[in-house]
Amino acid sequence: MIDKKIALKKHLQNNGKVEITGKVAIRNREDLSIYYTPGVAYVSEEIKKNKLLAYEYTNKGNTVAIISDGTRILGLGDIGPEAGLAVMEGKALLFKKYGGVDAVPMCISTKKEEDIIKFIKAIEPSIAAVNIEDIESPKVFRIIKKASEISEIPIFHDDQYGTAVVALAALINAFKIAGKTKNSKIVIFGAGSAGYGITKLLNFAGYKNLYVFDSEGVIKKGRKKDMNEFKIELSKITNTKNIDYSIDDAINGADLIIGTTGKKGYFKKEMIRKMNKKPIVFSLTNPEPEISYEDAIKAGAYIVATGKSNSPNQVNNIIAFPGIMRGLLEVRAKKITMKMLHEAAIIIAESVKDKLNREYIIPSASDEKKFFELSVDIAGAVGISAIKEKNARTILTHSRIKEIAAKRIKHYENMERLLFDQ
Amino acid sequence: MIDKKIALKKHLQNNGKVEITGKVAIRNREDLSIYYTPGVAYVSEEIKKNKLLAYEYTNKGNTVAIISDGTRILGLGDIGPEAGLAVMEGKALLFKKYGGVDAVPMCISTKKEEDIIKFIKAIEPSIAAVNIEDIESPKVFRIIKKASEISEIPIFHDDQYGTAVVALAALINAFKIAGKTKNSKIVIFGAGSAGYGITKLLNFAGYKNLYVFDSEGVIKKGRKKDMNEFKIELSKITNTKNIDYSIDDAINGADLIIGTTGKKGYFKKEMIRKMNKKPIVFSLTNPEPEISYEDAIKAGAYIVATGKSNSPNQVNNIIAFPGIMRGLLEVRAKKITMKMLHEAAIIIAESVKDKLNREYIIPSASDEKKFFELSVDIAGAVGISAIKEKNARTILTHSRIKEIAAKRIKHYENMERLLFDQ
Repeated sequence: MIDKKIALKKHLQNNGKVEITGKVAIRNREDLSIYYTPGVAYVSEEIKKNKLLAYEYTNKGNTVAIISDGTRILGLGDIGPEAGLAVMEGKALLFKKYGGVDAVPMCISTKKEEDIIKFIKAIEPSIAAVNIEDIESPKVFRIIKKASEISEIPIFHDDQYGTAVVALAALINAFKIAGKTKNSKIVIFGAGSAGYGITKLLNFAGYKNLYVFDSEGVIKKGRKKDMNEFKIELSKITNTKNIDYSIDDAINGADLIIGTTGKKGYFKKEMIRKMNKKPIVFSLTNPEPEISYEDAIKAGAYIVATGKSNSPNQVNNIIAFPGIMRGLLEVRAKKITMKMLHEAAIIIAESVKDKLNREYIIPSASDEKKFFELSVDIAGAVGISAIKEKNARTILTHSRIKEIAAKRIKHYENMERLLFDQ
Repeated sequence: MIDKKIALKKHLQNNGKVEITGKVAIRNREDLSIYYTPGVAYVSEEIKKNKLLAYEYTNKGNTVAIISDGTRILGLGDIGPEAGLAVMEGKALLFKKYGGVDAVPMCISTKKEEDIIKFIKAIEPSIAAVNIEDIESPKVFRIIKKASEISEIPIFHDDQYGTAVVALAALINAFKIAGKTKNSKIVIFGAGSAGYGITKLLNFAGYKNLYVFDSEGVIKKGRKKDMNEFKIELSKITNTKNIDYSIDDAINGADLIIGTTGKKGYFKKEMIRKMNKKPIVFSLTNPEPEISYEDAIKAGAYIVATGKSNSPNQVNNIIAFPGIMRGLLEVRAKKITMKMLHEAAIIIAESVKDKLNREYIIPSASDEKKFFELSVDIAGAVGISAIKEKNARTILTHSRIKEIAAKRIKHYENMERLLFDQ
């Protein structure tokens, strides 16, 4: 575990983690006249004629706003935008390091749904995509739905999409090893950002035997208590026979249980013992999972994944979001779709095929070398998917997308070396 | 003059001018655990207890939002936020290079006054100051007034404050050389951001014989046509005898005329000939002034300043805004005041005392060495002024402010060398 003192000291030493730098040097009066007045006026006049030229003449095309209202920061809950800023700076650093993306932390003072949507719409001219982060659900679902409707850029939601992609990748490989199918029984616990996102992506990917539990029990059509439009949506794509399941009955014969409950210790060993043969357990709550890797194995789980970095099979968004965003940016995507997320999951699943085993169903975030290639491959798949769906503003070949993506990520590798290897 | 082709090519080559970089390197899994989860949670929990700690543990304290709606970009008018982005990226680069400030371009899609104010309030937790840029007046005055009331950080307006500071610095030295006084007659043409800002600062600095003209003539108490609360404000601090001046009558015997009209060629030689002995002309419209330096001299002007870089005495905000912002940030100022601007102007005026002459009344923006010292000196003066006025959150000595300011600016000098001297 990381020591509190060290974490505080390191943050204090540098007053945070990200800063602005020039992409060009200003050496003399001529440089100043090119990059500022009067030269920049020519650039502005060109963009005025066609605003899409901002993607060429400015850094818009590589810029992402990380937007949070601070209401659901990590496992800490509603701790405010200033406290969230430390997390969003960390995210920005990861975006740059693993995706070559210029992400700007924007922790905002309003929690009102309509004001957050307005904020997103307001900042749109300056950015190529939004990354929504750590906003409480179901508010966040309404924000994303509405913002996606009124924006011409992708509204990415890592808590939902990133987690779903990595979980699906893990699922694909776990099912392959365990010989499970698209009809295998999957029970998802939790209907927040992660649970909702996973369920929707699994449904999109063709998994048909899904059940979702929230704090009021199984989600089903016609349930009255604690429903909203998003749970109604889930009720249509899960629990197709509309069974009024208890947790025990649902788990009985389940092939995979997925925990996104936010509740440490929620999964008991007895639960795993009731599952089908070769039971698979994804216990994704952070920092403390519903059941530890070791306990799940002891209870008879055949394959286990958790959110913890010191156990095998860590489900960590960091494998997915830099590459997905990189791909969206390379083709100047207009939106993000389930198809793109599905493609990203397939790439991640395939990336470990040489070493695939029960303790290695997804790449490890600490495998830097692998990681770079993975981001590039995901970018390629997401970019091509956007082009095929006509959601791209720029048409490139698959190899060209990968080439530019690699260049962008290498660019920061190089910067990091220049700035820190002194 | 800068060639259009070169300006476009240079911007295209790099897709703009600024990007995000890390303040720290991520080398391994431990770094990741310190700067992101789980370590960052400790930091967030500390900030939760006291949100001011965001100034310590994140980059908030060095971060400024450059906010524009694109309605008054340079001399180009309402060309839209995307077109404005090229200018704001340039501004961000100047903020970093000359002030060590991390300024984030935020060109926004709304032109509505109340929505811009809401945007400013929303982004407040992530930043230490706002720089409003190129928003049309008088809307921009209402935005700044209201935003300043509801924000706990300074709302800087370079078009108004920056220009006023440099103009006042130039005035102080020009008056010194020409032997003019606080009772000398000053006529200001234009009541937009620059004209309004200059008039207010001159009044604050004790110049009592002021007249302002807008397109409807001289501003005076009781005028009906084209007035607003800001012109009413000007009517109270200028034209104390409430004279219904024509331009000719006002200029008759004037000691200084200041042009902020946006109209090339607005000042005629005949006008200068009507002025008092040793007439002084500040012709500040960009890129083409109300009268050229040469023509004003030919018409008999004793001292002339313009916005042009290839004439003597260029009134260029770049001399002022990086140092002013640096000073505001060092002491974590709550707001910006006339007193701070006045102090900054005095520092700038004094900085050329050794070489003071009619062709050198303010430092040249191209004198890099001078420029660095000037930014540091301005930061010191502004910071101390904020402390004295109880507008600072951090109490530091004058020498300490200058020391940190110098370190911040040197930091980017170092980065620029590492990144570009390859």
